[in-house]
Order: sequence, then structure tokens, then C-alpha cells
Amino acid sequence: METIDQIIHAKWLITCEAAHPVLENHALVIDKGHIKAILPSDQATEHYHARTVEQFPGHAIIPGLINAHTHIPMNFFRGLADDLALMDWLNNHIWPAEKKWLSHEFVRDASLFAIAEMLRSGTTCFNDMFFFMPAIAEAIDISGIRGHVGITIINFPNNWAHNIDEEFSKGMDFYEQYKNHARVVPTLAPHAMYTVSEDAYLLRILDLAEKHHLKINMHVQETVSEIDTVFKKSQLRPLQRLKKLGMLTPRLIAVHMLHVSPEDLSLLTEHRPNIVHCPESNMKLASSSACPVTALLAQGVNVALGTDGAASNNDLSMLGEMRTAAFLAKHATGNPESVSAPEALTMATLNGAKALGMEKRIGSLAIGKEADFVAIHFDTIETLPVYHPISQIVYAASRDQVTDVWVAGKRLLKDRQLTTLDEKELRAKAIYWGNQIKG
Amino acid sequence: METIDQIIHAKWLITCEAAHPVLENHALVIDKGHIKAILPSDQATEHYHARTVEQFPGHAIIPGLINAHTHIPMNFFRGLADDLALMDWLNNHIWPAEKKWLSHEFVRDASLFAIAEMLRSGTTCFNDMFFFMPAIAEAIDISGIRGHVGITIINFPNNWAHNIDEEFSKGMDFYEQYKNHARVVPTLAPHAMYTVSEDAYLLRILDLAEKHHLKINMHVQETVSEIDTVFKKSQLRPLQRLKKLGMLTPRLIAVHMLHVSPEDLSLLTEHRPNIVHCPESNMKLASSSACPVTALLAQGVNVALGTDGAASNNDLSMLGEMRTAAFLAKHATGNPESVSAPEALTMATLNGAKALGMEKRIGSLAIGKEADFVAIHFDTIETLPVYHPISQIVYAASRDQVTDVWVAGKRLLKDRQLTTLDEKELRAKAIYWGNQIKG
Repeated sequence: METIDQIIHAKWLITCEAAHPVLENHALVIDKGHIKAILPSDQATEHYHARTVEQFPGHAIIPGLINAHTHIPMNFFRGLADDLALMDWLNNHIWPAEKKWLSHEFVRDASLFAIAEMLRSGTTCFNDMFFFMPAIAEAIDISGIRGHVGITIINFPNNWAHNIDEEFSKGMDFYEQYKNHARVVPTLAPHAMYTVSEDAYLLRILDLAEKHHLKINMHVQETVSEIDTVFKKSQLRPLQRLKKLGMLTPRLIAVHMLHVSPEDLSLLTEHRPNIVHCPESNMKLASSSACPVTALLAQGVNVALGTDGAASNNDLSMLGEMRTAAFLAKHATGNPESVSAPEALTMATLNGAKALGMEKRIGSLAIGKEADFVAIHFDTIETLPVYHPISQIVYAASRDQVTDVWVAGKRLLKDRQLTTLDEKELRAKAIYWGNQIKG
Repeated sequence: METIDQIIHAKWLITCEAAHPVLENHALVIDKGHIKAILPSDQATEHYHARTVEQFPGHAIIPGLINAHTHIPMNFFRGLADDLALMDWLNNHIWPAEKKWLSHEFVRDASLFAIAEMLRSGTTCFNDMFFFMPAIAEAIDISGIRGHVGITIINFPNNWAHNIDEEFSKGMDFYEQYKNHARVVPTLAPHAMYTVSEDAYLLRILDLAEKHHLKINMHVQETVSEIDTVFKKSQLRPLQRLKKLGMLTPRLIAVHMLHVSPEDLSLLTEHRPNIVHCPESNMKLASSSACPVTALLAQGVNVALGTDGAASNNDLSMLGEMRTAAFLAKHATGNPESVSAPEALTMATLNGAKALGMEKRIGSLAIGKEADFVAIHFDTIETLPVYHPISQIVYAASRDQVTDVWVAGKRLLKDRQLTTLDEKELRAKAIYWGNQIKG
């Protein structure tokens, strides 16, 4: 009998693999941080001797959720300024607060705090765009979560860099430092076409991305005013301009993607960038359009899901984001079959992995993939009885029902307790920074 | 020094009274189930001797949430059939399941289960429409919650009544039995104008309502097909037909109210029925329009908030419903100021009380009102730091942060534990009925 690290028995395994999405009374067999086998519980017990065996008789085990667009250090600004228009919110509240407060220390503390929130709601991987990337990477390293960290390029001075050239140089230093880290993946992140408008800079980003095989994250078509600004400058809509620059490829992670015209849809279908849908942020900021998820999925375009920053959401829960994505798609199309519960879950897992270029390593429960997974407790007043476990996850469960979380086989949340972070200390730091910001 | 029942000290008291919405370090002074005083904590201690004193140093205390539209016995059907169109869902799934399963016993068990969910998410009063009203009233009586119970009139035979005449007679028996109950309030509830289409029945309902001073609940303008059906029959849109019948008055609680034309808006402004907005159900069932909350509130029309049944939501959490109401209003209008966090909270409290004709008794923290209130814990990873407590409630808190709930001064949830219901037994009953329904 072969000896391996762990067997995890569960009432339901939700694999997010097309061939067998929901398995009952099955086990995950884990060794050296990877999934070695998936089989009926009784067979697992018969074939493997495990160093640890865990039972989850009232739980579903799902792949770790992937939050495909975040600004995690903004967690300390959550609730600072709500019910405001995007540009008012950015110009008069968020950017001034960032100017006043951002530092390596602030970003590290806020990142650890946000990572705690993500782990407590079942997220095992996130894809961030912010300043002070080394501080974010430090938080990833300490916590054990998986994170893609965007080298942000934005053409105005900020606390992290005096100018755009310094952003490039500090960014590439960051890349060199973290390029071989097991769980930190550097990416490129030009903020948007209205904040990095010059061809030269965009082409320099593309060149770096191709040379180092990096994904490019960019806010694209979040607002009508952004589209108008780009058009005024170039006589092209954002996607046309990206195409002209050679950036409209699967390397691009285009975040938001609202106000999609028929021509835009054709360009997306043909060139297949990855889309990240952020329904709650778009609704809260009144962006007044919905990413056409149903049409994009029908065309085979990959659509992942993100929360955006906590200041425009105001949480980092992918459980809630799946539910809102399903609701908004049905509302926008008038078709209740749009974005079904299984589709929403796939967007939050496998599609997220595809967007990040990580689908061979994470995103579903499949043999050979890294063991990133989450246990969700169903034996509660809020989620009984269970007819369809995926419906329960997307439409009924809330984040407090996430009991346990593993990344690469390591348990980071155990019966609601963080194993790598000190929750009490994190709360104290949040109160400290909140008091500073309140002044 | 006067001796009274309770003093509740809290970091924040959110009163939902216009004059002083948020009070810091204040106390609620409670006697004989009513709010006797609201004053700074130190003054409360100085002026009153309380039999019990409680401290909530990391909490906000808010008025009990009022769920203004429910079908609570449907909780056992949650997740049975999702991602389906309204008429398919009703005709092929929900109504057959109801035909097969509804009984006094089923409705009582499901109602107790739903009430547990509501208490655990801060709801202290609900407004229901279903069959087997005595079973629902029994559950209200046992649990200690407050409930308005609709005498449902629907023109087809069902497990509760063989025909509409029996519905009227059993309904009025129910009214006689419960008309003086402290926490059960009978109302009238013609299901909709496509299921009670005859003038004679509608006029009979109006007559009973006026005679006994009862509110009339009705689904109005939930779908385009409903509007078309009414128009085909009467050459009138639903609101025009209600006006002609004399039913378009503040006595009416019109649930949903989508697809509102300019003429509809004028009728609502002039005749002032109460509206119940159910954003999550409308989105999930792809009703493809949004109740024009912003416009209605601007005209002074009272708009309350409801979850609808758990089979089309799929939860009964008013915390989530407030958040979705704010998000959907911003999305629908393109104006991020639409339905601000304080407006959403008012819809879920005081406006609910107004809709039910209960605003002198409940709906805000005010001297003389019954002591229905809720403690929400903010000292968590998800809701720190706190800049604006109302923003935190509407945009960031989730139901598990509701720690304590009181109705008429009686504590029904204490540190997350139900005091009048046996949670373990409720879960066992849900599993039992779920297994029966799965077959």
C-alpha cells in the first residue's frame, strides 16, 4: 500500500472538470502538494496509506477560488467614500488618500489584512494591480496564498515612483527578484489607456511582456468617458487601438469590458484576450452597463471573475461575486438561463486560472494539479436541504461557511482559524491605520 | 433612581430617525418591551437602574430589519430548481412541488426553519403570502418573531383550499383567530391579477380589507406577460385596473413593480400605494427590468424591501438585499448616488414599517416604539476599519456578523444562538423533508 501525505474525504467533490463536475462520497488524495488521485472514498482508503486523513461529511470541496482582479492594499480604504461617481471617487477621495498614506509598511499591512479576508472566503489565488509590489509579495510569501502581482504603470507621480521611467525600472527589479518564486507571479499592469496613453510606453510594456512571457493586465472599457477619451486622442475605440498596437491577444487580461459594441464583440471573438468581469464594482460605481458575459462565453472567449478593490465593492468575497455575476447576467439579458450556477463557479475557478495562464497548475480538481482547494460547510440553517450543491454554493452559501482552505496542499484556514496569520494582530493593525486615516 | 428592565450600551446606535441617524456611545433604555429612552451611555447609567445591562463595544445596534415580502414556507424548496424562467419555474417545478408536499405540518416546519434563518440575519418582522396561514402563525407564536400573514386568494384549487370560496372562508376564520395576537397580523393577499382576475373577487377582497382595516398584498407588474394578460382582458394596464377597482390606495402593498411607464409613475405618485422592491428575485428570475426606486423615492412614494421566497433568491437575508438594492439602483440609473447606504437601510426598516402600517410601533429606534433591534459585530477582518457604520452594514457586513436580536425587548438570538428554537432539530427536519422531496 502506497504511503502519501493526505486523504480528504468529502460528501461532495465539485471538480469544475467538464467530465465529472460533482462527485459524491469521493476523496482527494494529495501528495507533495499535488492531487495524486480522485476516487470513491472506500477505494481511497483501500489503496492509500495517508499520513493525515480528514473527513468532511457535511461539506463540499471545491477548487480554490481565483479572484482575477484586485487592488488588495485598498482594504484599509473600505467604506471611506461610498455612493460616489468613479472619477469623483478616484480624484477626490481614493487618489488623495493613496497620496497621503501609501508606503511599503501600509501596503504590507493592508495586503496581509486583505489576504486574511480572501482566505476566510475561499480564495486561494488573486491577481493584483497596485503600487509597492514588493510589500504585496512579502504578504503573499508570509501568508501562503498564491498571488499574481501587477507591475503597475501609470503616467503620474505617486508615492512608489517619481515618474513612469522609475515605475519601469523598479518594476523590472521586482520581476527579477520574484520571477522564480513558487507562489508569487509578476505580471505587467498598465493602469488604463487614459492613464498610460502614449504609444511608446504601451509598446515598451508589450516588448517586456513578450520578452519575459508576462501577462498584461489593463482596465479596458470601464466607463464611457474612458472610451471617449481614447477615441478623441486616436479616432479609435480602445479595442481597436489595442489591436493596432499588437496588444489585443490572449496575453492581455482586459478588466471590466463594458459598453461592448457589435464591432467590439467581433474583435474580442477574433483576438481572444482574457476578460475579467467585476460585476459588483461596476454596479456600485454605476458604470451603467454590464460586461456581455453570456455572449462572450457563447463565442468561446474566456471570462474570469474579480471583485476589484474593497473600496468599490466593498468585500473580496468571490462567493458573493459569483452570485452577483449570475444575477446581473440574467437581469441584463432577460434570460434566466444566462450564467447558471455551474457557469458562475467555472468563471471563479477554471476561467480564472486560464486568464492567468495557470490552467495546467490550478483552477480545478484534477490529477497532477496543485492542491488548492476549499471546504464549504452545508449543514446550516441557510443551506439545508441540499438538492444541487453547486446551486447552494453560488446562490445560498456565505463566506462564513468556508471552513478550511489549502494552497499547494498546505492548510491555511483550519476550522475558520488562519494558520499562518495572527487574526487579532491584523485587526489591531486595521484599527491603527483606520484611526490614522480618520485623523 | 428609576428601575427599568434593560440598558443596552453600544458603540454605535443607528436609529433610522432623520434627526439623529447615528449616535456614538449611546444606550437604549428598555422597559416592558418598549424603548423608554435613548441617551449617552454615561447618562443612562446615571439615571436608570436596570435589571440587566449589556455592553456592545464593537457593535452597531440597528432597528430590526423588516422583510416586506416573503413566502417563508418555500425555504424547503430552496435550490430545487434554479436558472429557469418565472413561468417554467412556477408551472413545472414550484407549483407541482407545492401540490405534492404542502400540508399544515410541512408549512409549520418550513416556517420555523425560515424564521430561524431570518433571526440569524437580523430580521425581526416579515410580511408573508402563502397557504396554511395557521401553520405560519403557529411558527411566529412559538419563535417570538413578528409576522404579517397574508390570507392568500388565488383562483385555482390547492392543498389548502378546494376553491376560492373556501380560501375566503378559511381565510376569515384565520383572521378571527389571530386578529388580537400581539405579533401575528393577518393581511389580505390576492396573489396577482392573472391568478385572481375577476372583478367580483377583487371587490370582495377590498370590501373585507376596508371592513377589517387590513392591508392588501399583491404581486403587481412582476413580468411583461402579466401586464399583457391584464391588458388583453381589460384594455387597462394593471395600475389603471387597480385604480378603476378602487384598490390603488395606501392600503395596497404592491410587490415588485417593474416595467413602470411614465403613466404608471404618475399613478403611483398620485395614489401612493406602498411598493415592495425585491431586487434579488427580480434579477434571478430575469424579470429584465428594475423597480424605479430612485424615481419613486424622489416622488415621496414609500418603497420597502423584500427578499421574496428562498426558492427565487436563494436566501432571506435583508443585509444582502439592501446591498443588491443599492447596487441595482446605481446600475439602472447610471447614478452612483442612487439608493445610498442610508437610503437602503431606511427601506429595510422604517419604510417596511410604513408599508405594513406599523411605523408608530416599529421601524426605527425611537422612544415609545417596541424594542425590536439587532446587534451587528464590526470587529472582524471583513468590516474593519470603520469609517461610516451604515456603509459597513450595507456594503460589507454579512449575516454571520449579526450576533443578537430582540423582538419587543425579548432576546431571540443571543451570541448567534437561537433562544426560542432548537437549531439542531430544525436542521434535522430540513434534511428529513429534503429527502422526502428528492424521493
